[in-house]
Amino acid sequence: MADTIESFAGQDILSVDQFNRAALNAVFGVAHEMRVLVERFGGAELLQGKILANLFYEPSTRTSSSFTAAMQRLGGQVIAINNVQYSSVSKGESLPDTVRTLECYADVIVIRHPEVGAAATAAYYADKPVINAGDGIGEHPTQALLDLFTVQEELQQIDGLTVVMVGDLRYGRTVHSLTKLLLNYEVSFVFVSPEILRLPADLIEAVEASGHSCRQVQDLNSVIGEADVLYMTRVQRERFTDLAEYDRVKDFFVVDKELMARARRKMIVMHPLPRVGEISYAMDDDPRAAYFRQMRNGMYIRMALLAALLGKA
Amino acid sequence: MADTIESFAGQDILSVDQFNRAALNAVFGVAHEMRVLVERFGGAELLQGKILANLFYEPSTRTSSSFTAAMQRLGGQVIAINNVQYSSVSKGESLPDTVRTLECYADVIVIRHPEVGAAATAAYYADKPVINAGDGIGEHPTQALLDLFTVQEELQQIDGLTVVMVGDLRYGRTVHSLTKLLLNYEVSFVFVSPEILRLPADLIEAVEASGHSCRQVQDLNSVIGEADVLYMTRVQRERFTDLAEYDRVKDFFVVDKELMARARRKMIVMHPLPRVGEISYAMDDDPRAAYFRQMRNGMYIRMALLAALLGKA
Amino acid sequence: MADTIESFAGQDILSVDQFNRAALNAVFGVAHEMRVLVERFGGAELLQGKILANLFYEPSTRTSSSFTAAMQRLGGQVIAINNVQYSSVSKGESLPDTVRTLECYADVIVIRHPEVGAAATAAYYADKPVINAGDGIGEHPTQALLDLFTVQEELQQIDGLTVVMVGDLRYGRTVHSLTKLLLNYEVSFVFVSPEILRLPADLIEAVEASGHSCRQVQDLNSVIGEADVLYMTRVQRERFTDLAEYDRVKDFFVVDKELMARARRKMIVMHPLPRVGEISYAMDDDPRAAYFRQMRNGMYIRMALLAALLGKA
Repeated sequence: MADTIESFAGQDILSVDQFNRAALNAVFGVAHEMRVLVERFGGAELLQGKILANLFYEPSTRTSSSFTAAMQRLGGQVIAINNVQYSSVSKGESLPDTVRTLECYADVIVIRHPEVGAAATAAYYADKPVINAGDGIGEHPTQALLDLFTVQEELQQIDGLTVVMVGDLRYGRTVHSLTKLLLNYEVSFVFVSPEILRLPADLIEAVEASGHSCRQVQDLNSVIGEADVLYMTRVQRERFTDLAEYDRVKDFFVVDKELMARARRKMIVMHPLPRVGEISYAMDDDPRAAYFRQMRNGMYIRMALLAALLGKA
Repeated sequence: MADTIESFAGQDILSVDQFNRAALNAVFGVAHEMRVLVERFGGAELLQGKILANLFYEPSTRTSSSFTAAMQRLGGQVIAINNVQYSSVSKGESLPDTVRTLECYADVIVIRHPEVGAAATAAYYADKPVINAGDGIGEHPTQALLDLFTVQEELQQIDGLTVVMVGDLRYGRTVHSLTKLLLNYEVSFVFVSPEILRLPADLIEAVEASGHSCRQVQDLNSVIGEADVLYMTRVQRERFTDLAEYDRVKDFFVVDKELMARARRKMIVMHPLPRVGEISYAMDDDPRAAYFRQMRNGMYIRMALLAALLGKA
Repeated sequence: MADTIESFAGQDILSVDQFNRAALNAVFGVAHEMRVLVERFGGAELLQGKILANLFYEPSTRTSSSFTAAMQRLGGQVIAINNVQYSSVSKGESLPDTVRTLECYADVIVIRHPEVGAAATAAYYADKPVINAGDGIGEHPTQALLDLFTVQEELQQIDGLTVVMVGDLRYGRTVHSLTKLLLNYEVSFVFVSPEILRLPADLIEAVEASGHSCRQVQDLNSVIGEADVLYMTRVQRERFTDLAEYDRVKDFFVVDKELMARARRKMIVMHPLPRVGEISYAMDDDPRAAYFRQMRNGMYIRMALLAALLGKA
């Protein structure tokens, strides 16, 4: 396991399981430096002459833009491949061949793919570093890293916090990955969801087995006062086969001014975005609303990882 | 109202109404310098380290390429977002959230959107500068600026000219915007169109109320000899619900060698492009055919605006 | 005919017919230098400030990525235009106008188009250099150049070799173009295909008329032992109107370990990629498998051509 920043050189980023507390510290340290660099100078020329292949088998404007900006702010360039379904697949090309072709041109590959394991397959065949930018219901490790980095940057600590996660905890990939990363710290968990969207049993077991305090409730009102971190998620229509069920639960938990009146003064509201109706627009001016700063932290985390994988951190 | 080049720093470009004569002079001065820079050196590194997000909700190769080239020739980089309908919309994200996400990554946002007012909405929510690259039947201010800049560059003057505008004057957004900008100068207007595609009454009133000479005719032949500027437009099929009507009027006015034989020796033919059949290909070698130089001027105007908004002009 | 590297400045690359032996030597010399530059330094800044317009009327991730990387590794920038069908065509714009618009912004244009002759049309109207990246069943000259460059780089010679070409020799554009280029050298040809996919008669005549040894066979096993270069091609489903016929011939010739056991120790297996089943994955670790190195050579060839056309080689 890579746990110094130097040891990331040439590695792949496939799963949150690759990160222990030392590795997280190392990455967050570089990400914080990236933030300072961008805020002061707009960026740095660490990756000048380097090329990132941004291989997106399904659209994700947000994630692809974030990786693109991260590479560009380090002086690197990007080959954007957004319509893979139109090209290689129609000619029947395999993922391994696509990846081995791209590494002929590029220095690092970011891949998003609808199938679990696709990023690992890509990494297996590629000699160049591969970053998993989401493989279906699998992992999206840079999202979890930016989430945790946001907690650190906003509250200057992770140990000792109470983290309240809300919404679609069953299918929500971001919740699963962030929960795993948080097991490296001394935190208390509160999981808030409708019955049908509870956190998977194996994750609950992992949380409990590791000795963390953990409650599952259905009422956000009763726990909002305890939250240091309120992590909201979207109830994604894409995950439902029964749309009537979706309509019934989608507005279950909404963050608005009334709810936030009962929240602590020093706490943060996070959301991986896009939101649909989970957080009212009226909340956006509340200083506790951290979701756009969270978005920006995504760019810093990706800058840190790109620099680390290419041996320039 | 920004009317020195320095005062554009941090502003948005949403409408031609933002530009008075002083502002136009300031922008055209910088655009001319950009032209000299590109012709001599290919560009400059004024915007190195800066990122433009090119957010196109409807396709426009021409406009997006022009903004991309403008940014690149100033040493900046571009995040291209061309398939917005595939991504955010399918997850139900709002325009304000999309824009606030992109400004986490980029320094300036160019937006093209099918709905009137979308660019203003984007600008309202964004802290970073926003440029309207066309909002449906609303405005497309950089097109009007490049049109007027072309008159200035080609004829070294604007005051005193006779401007003949031809084609779809009713729906033609470019004609409306250019007409508004020309009200800042001492020009005579001649509007040539079929009855059904005449300039809207409120614009005619604005032209007359401001004391400008103005005629509306249906016959291009009778007025071609007076034109210093002949501004042709395409009769856009997209604007018609009745395609039979489109077929009847589309070839009404065509610029060919026969017509041009009656035009002045020192005058210019302009067209916002793409043309369909309004200007014969045989005209392209005529030195009065200014439409490709006009296209190139679009890049200079956009370079000037990008530099000005980012405080580097 | 351009046959020194300096004489390529400002030229178009439309057809392999533009290249005689001197021209090939000149381009291969620069391409080899590009390889050294990339392997040592990642690239060079020869084309800083230059812009390539990558105009793809049909998707080709591989080719567009290769040109993009080539331009970026030389310090230049790229305007990617991948969805032409959505934009200009829907407004009825002609290819000449599209090209003349793009050359207002860019310094060199790469075009891929489904119609034979489209690249020549583009070059006729453009003042800036145009590179044909495939015009339907017409030509794709940079593919043929990278194929031949691969032979030179891998085997340090071209004269004296036996080249065995396999698969769809009737419709395979890459086979036709490579064959033409090889006529500049002293090689022996063996063409292996099912009856229905034999090399066109006019090409066979050209090979024979030029005094080259040439055989046509249907059995790869019987000739594998002679091959210095084994050039495999995909039997493209797109070329068949009768899919039953496609299914019958598609697996006719497959390269696997059994076949390769009878091949020379010093020889190479090439493929323009993507492959479907013509070459078994088990072959990929064989040092004679040159197809991914071939892919990388494509970038070097395109770097050499871009630099040459822009007068910087």
